[in-house]
Amino acid sequence: MKTGLPIVTEVIDPRDVSWVCEYADILQIGARNMQNFSLLKEVGKSQKPILLKRGMHSTLREWLNCAEYILAEGNPDVILCERGIRTFETYTRNTLDLSIIPAIKEMTHLPVMVDPSHGTGKLSLIEPMSLAAVAAGADGLLLEVHINPAEAKSDADQQLTPTQFSHVMEKVLKLKKFMDAEIGPSTIGGHH
Amino acid sequence: MKTGLPIVTEVIDPRDVSWVCEYADILQIGARNMQNFSLLKEVGKSQKPILLKRGMHSTLREWLNCAEYILAEGNPDVILCERGIRTFETYTRNTLDLSIIPAIKEMTHLPVMVDPSHGTGKLSLIEPMSLAAVAAGADGLLLEVHINPAEAKSDADQQLTPTQFSHVMEKVLKLKKFMDAEIGPSTIGGHH
Amino acid sequence: MKTGLPIVTEVIDPRDVSWVCEYADILQIGARNMQNFSLLKEVGKSQKPILLKRGMHSTLREWLNCAEYILAEGNPDVILCERGIRTFETYTRNTLDLSIIPAIKEMTHLPVMVDPSHGTGKLSLIEPMSLAAVAAGADGLLLEVHINPAEAKSDADQQLTPTQFSHVMEKVLKLKKFMDAEIGPSTIGGHH
Amino acid sequence: MKTGLPIVTEVIDPRDVSWVCEYADILQIGARNMQNFSLLKEVGKSQKPILLKRGMHSTLREWLNCAEYILAEGNPDVILCERGIRTFETYTRNTLDLSIIPAIKEMTHLPVMVDPSHGTGKLSLIEPMSLAAVAAGADGLLLEVHINPAEAKSDADQQLTPTQFSHVMEKVLKLKKFMDAEIGPSTIGGHH
Repeated sequence: MKTGLPIVTEVIDPRDVSWVCEYADILQIGARNMQNFSLLKEVGKSQKPILLKRGMHSTLREWLNCAEYILAEGNPDVILCERGIRTFETYTRNTLDLSIIPAIKEMTHLPVMVDPSHGTGKLSLIEPMSLAAVAAGADGLLLEVHINPAEAKSDADQQLTPTQFSHVMEKVLKLKKFMDAEIGPSTIGGHH
Repeated sequence: MKTGLPIVTEVIDPRDVSWVCEYADILQIGARNMQNFSLLKEVGKSQKPILLKRGMHSTLREWLNCAEYILAEGNPDVILCERGIRTFETYTRNTLDLSIIPAIKEMTHLPVMVDPSHGTGKLSLIEPMSLAAVAAGADGLLLEVHINPAEAKSDADQQLTPTQFSHVMEKVLKLKKFMDAEIGPSTIGGHH
Repeated sequence: MKTGLPIVTEVIDPRDVSWVCEYADILQIGARNMQNFSLLKEVGKSQKPILLKRGMHSTLREWLNCAEYILAEGNPDVILCERGIRTFETYTRNTLDLSIIPAIKEMTHLPVMVDPSHGTGKLSLIEPMSLAAVAAGADGLLLEVHINPAEAKSDADQQLTPTQFSHVMEKVLKLKKFMDAEIGPSTIGGHH
Repeated sequence: MKTGLPIVTEVIDPRDVSWVCEYADILQIGARNMQNFSLLKEVGKSQKPILLKRGMHSTLREWLNCAEYILAEGNPDVILCERGIRTFETYTRNTLDLSIIPAIKEMTHLPVMVDPSHGTGKLSLIEPMSLAAVAAGADGLLLEVHINPAEAKSDADQQLTPTQFSHVMEKVLKLKKFMDAEIGPSTIGGHH
């Protein structure tokens, strides 16, 4: 709290929810726990916003059902986060499914974030996919940053340095402003 | 030719290549024929640009190998077109893999197009995914348009009307101009 | 316990492990909880055999890593259960991956079961896939049975009646006896 | 023809069909050409049996539609061959989908073969998966054999030596005889 930055942290055990709430501003449910229903119910009873990552094998419908577990316990603050799904393709760590952003916006009022760090697993793809996520309508980004990526304990290939992070964010904010001012929402409805 | 619009048409049999070249400006190789090596060699001997769609099961490496078949016959004008890959997800017809655009740009000098019509199969997703493709660096879009989508012989759910097409293109061109003028190419290299 | 049949039941919350152990003979970890590490550690501290189902998106390596979580806590009795993975194919509920049976037997000493009920989701495929599993080397089968499948609260399409179960088991046992007596283990090693 | 063994060979170009028919006993359509409709029509006009391999991304329905292209030209001798589909799993080259055998038998009268060599890509998995294919109801196997696998120009990891081939075939024939005599066809119909 010294920095004034709010804290998002992952919780993986229902027994940890209450004490983690004393320190964190947002609780994250990781992709591997998306269908951990005990955990979903427990965070649904908390007063904190919940960042619910999509399971790597999860359909849109299953993901929204998991959000329902949280909402049904009385917690309305669910933030969805697309982080890539598992496919046969191996040049990226996962396949980032950006079309799910407008699909979710048609079906719910929940905010949607995108995680291009895990979604691609490759430093050089993070900037273009951050911009693409904004153009597709994302409400936020989850970007991994490390003071010295070479020393990161995990996922070193996808960590931005603070300088790289600044450059990406400058472009992202410029694009977001342009999208809101000049492009606006889609006017083409579907057949749903 | 009455309209002045150039013509792209799909060729599926090596025996048709020579006569189709008399009428078409660009030859398209469809996703199902991406690995039809006889056909690739035959169009490689033609003088026309080739639009090579990605197979729905194809890795980046396999796709570029297929482009090589064409290039090796002496035809340098290969245009790649991402049209979605097949995954477990069913809310879209395919999963549009936009991260392949910057990945291809790192590895080749070939232009890359995106087909959000087949890639999503859903009218309401075409505009946001067209914009996302531009933000990710796409050089062109393949959009399906029909005077009266309800009467289309195939793929009616993904056809734009001419009016909708105009609206999408207006936004796409505005965004493309902004990207070129204000955002520019990524400055973050990879570890390849 | 009136019947003398041992009981396998699923546990989904680490807080339930101790009391469930008083009633169940084997604890099952479901596919959706395969990577629920808190739960894996908790059942690793119990004295009961653990039936660990493969996640629908899980590689062989990830599955064995999850078994390690249990083994590392001191519980040596882990039974693996293949129940089908998620693919693009839709004529079955999942794609049953029988080649994982001999692959596991090369790498570990753990017993492997197969669940053709969830693996196929179709009544008519259960008998042939049960026989195929035995021929591939499976140590056991998990088969869903219901007195009246039409009234089953879930998964009615994949429930055997008791009579059908008897017929399948008769063939399975006959085949298992034949495999042990006449076919024996594979004599062809790999290049691993 | 010196050996008396019939010859199966792959044809990849419609222009080659007529002359290949002079030498081959069976024409194979490879997985990459499963949806090469010009080629399918051309072999449909020949008098030879056609071995149609499943595309690595192909659903059951798409595969049967491709068989229809051949049958519709008047050639009734189509043999289907399952050779594994592409999934996220990497410990095998492909994921062999044996449940498609009984599914095809419910829907058609066409014979079904299985290719455990390409389906697994691993020498040590070929024997158990050959046996599993027989138990699932396969009518034939496609096995790769090489006098000296280490010198094979491709796919060296999945080639059997002639001695290994004899061992596998001895077990396969023993099991097939047992299945026909003692197990018989499934008596459990589906809900289709």
